[in-house]
Amino acid sequence: MPELRRDPIVGRWVIISTERAGRPRDFLEDTHARQPVADICPFCPGQERLTPREVLAYRPQESPPNSPGWTVRVVPNKFPALQVEGDMGREGIGLYDRMNGIGAHEVIIETPDHKAALADVPPKHVEDILWAYRDRMVDLKRDLRFRFILIFKNHGAAAGATLEHSHSQLIALPVVPTSVLDEIEGCRNHFQQKERCIYCDIIRQELTDRVRIVADNSEFIVMTPFAPRFAFEMWILPKRHAAYFEESQKTQFELLARILAEALKRMDKVLSRPAYNFILHTSPFHEKTGDYYHWHVELIPKLTQVAGFEWGTGFYINPVTPEEAAKFLREAEI
Amino acid sequence: MPELRRDPIVGRWVIISTERAGRPRDFLEDTHARQPVADICPFCPGQERLTPREVLAYRPQESPPNSPGWTVRVVPNKFPALQVEGDMGREGIGLYDRMNGIGAHEVIIETPDHKAALADVPPKHVEDILWAYRDRMVDLKRDLRFRFILIFKNHGAAAGATLEHSHSQLIALPVVPTSVLDEIEGCRNHFQQKERCIYCDIIRQELTDRVRIVADNSEFIVMTPFAPRFAFEMWILPKRHAAYFEESQKTQFELLARILAEALKRMDKVLSRPAYNFILHTSPFHEKTGDYYHWHVELIPKLTQVAGFEWGTGFYINPVTPEEAAKFLREAEI
Repeated sequence: MPELRRDPIVGRWVIISTERAGRPRDFLEDTHARQPVADICPFCPGQERLTPREVLAYRPQESPPNSPGWTVRVVPNKFPALQVEGDMGREGIGLYDRMNGIGAHEVIIETPDHKAALADVPPKHVEDILWAYRDRMVDLKRDLRFRFILIFKNHGAAAGATLEHSHSQLIALPVVPTSVLDEIEGCRNHFQQKERCIYCDIIRQELTDRVRIVADNSEFIVMTPFAPRFAFEMWILPKRHAAYFEESQKTQFELLARILAEALKRMDKVLSRPAYNFILHTSPFHEKTGDYYHWHVELIPKLTQVAGFEWGTGFYINPVTPEEAAKFLREAEI
Repeated sequence: MPELRRDPIVGRWVIISTERAGRPRDFLEDTHARQPVADICPFCPGQERLTPREVLAYRPQESPPNSPGWTVRVVPNKFPALQVEGDMGREGIGLYDRMNGIGAHEVIIETPDHKAALADVPPKHVEDILWAYRDRMVDLKRDLRFRFILIFKNHGAAAGATLEHSHSQLIALPVVPTSVLDEIEGCRNHFQQKERCIYCDIIRQELTDRVRIVADNSEFIVMTPFAPRFAFEMWILPKRHAAYFEESQKTQFELLARILAEALKRMDKVLSRPAYNFILHTSPFHEKTGDYYHWHVELIPKLTQVAGFEWGTGFYINPVTPEEAAKFLREAEI
């Protein structure tokens, strides 16, 4: 059973998931390195038996579950970091806090096409992927043990992807990660002072300055943040205030799909198809953050190693100004 | 001039240091990758002219500055992330805060021997390296612009080292990094409730349980933390309460040198000489943290890629329990 443990000083929860671990020798190799190219990709149509049974699939021709014919397919992760069954088992051990590693860990297979990267997928199809995120969130929200859902994508081996076939991941957690709590706290402080959402204030300032805007449409902006941790880091934000991704309107998903596809294409053009991560930051389920939190997507090309300085301090050195990065991205011909 | 910028939501400062940056193409290559092996190592004796002029060197035979004969040598970083000269230039830009990238960035060349790793250096020599850290801290503390000094080591290309010759780095900052502030806040909260240092409480509990102790002597313990972010992560802590590394007693440096050397040897034995980072966490200069903060060293072998999940959340998945890791490390024959 995986375990969740809390650092008593900073309150950070970590997952201790030893299912795949053995002798120390196992850690000498990069466990995130790309697996050897097998003959058979478990995410390809026709190989559905190689994954756990699907929890969601869009099947325009109404083909049976766990068979080909899907456009987007969601399955439990075959090697989950957390386990769905069981009770929370919260307990204190002296100074320390632990609980059972309860949670869901799912894989969103974004396309039946083994060769297509997300940037190659038509915006209409990207929209379906966003709907799959939303449908799974709405479903998992009903499980009252879960407090937060993290949706993220690792693209490319350097970003931690172990399988080539384009996919994203979902993790439902019984705790709220520290970094999300930090954002929420920053938002709450700003709201208490000014009765405004800080992200809304940022969007207004950015739309006036325009030096960090990469793209925008009627509902979304793509911008490089003022204090980016990483070169060419981008944020995608809804222009209208909204705390919960899963409550977006249908037209918003259409426009998000288009602008996400555009952001990926611009990034690929400027940086020659880099490895990247994206992470959806949205409200926890049970906290009342509606007035002051603002959901968004963080898109981070993986260009450099993060070294000791960054680990030690959460203090980052970025060799590119966000104004330069935005200019390159904005002016790229796509 | 490098720049310090503050994220308006979470308060994190980042360094925007564009000195070496150019076109986006420059970021396609891993800028932290090991440089091609040149004929001449700038950190070797006889090559002192290849570095900026030394700010400190231990020369048992009293040889002249910037010539051979040193055992430990400290020089400004040739490609500093921050700049020593100039004023702070703090200003607000709408919602945002920035200041000039004022700070010191130095390299501690740990040994004249190009081939020796820190783990190979005799404890007596490690002690001199610790004295060099301390002497530079005491000197830089006099500059009232600086609020925090970070000392860290990247060993091996996977951990971000760009030069093979064993060295550590020092960065003096005009701000306190968020992650240090988070630790200090956690310590302060515990102290307010219990009038005890939380690290002292942890040490007491660990010395009773002994399941996470790797090694100890009369002044220090090496332990794996209860909620480690990384496999085989270790902390080295003084057993007696102390907030400021630079105020350690001479005998403490002797014992720290010995236990650091032992920790590195155990790690090298169990993990076959991995790349690693260590980071010294000590008090900021002007904050009164003496009662409740406890300086320590974090030692992190670099075994796996950090993927999107970790970036997005500050929430880590660790495949090894700290109890198992401590057992392997403790029982290694060195």
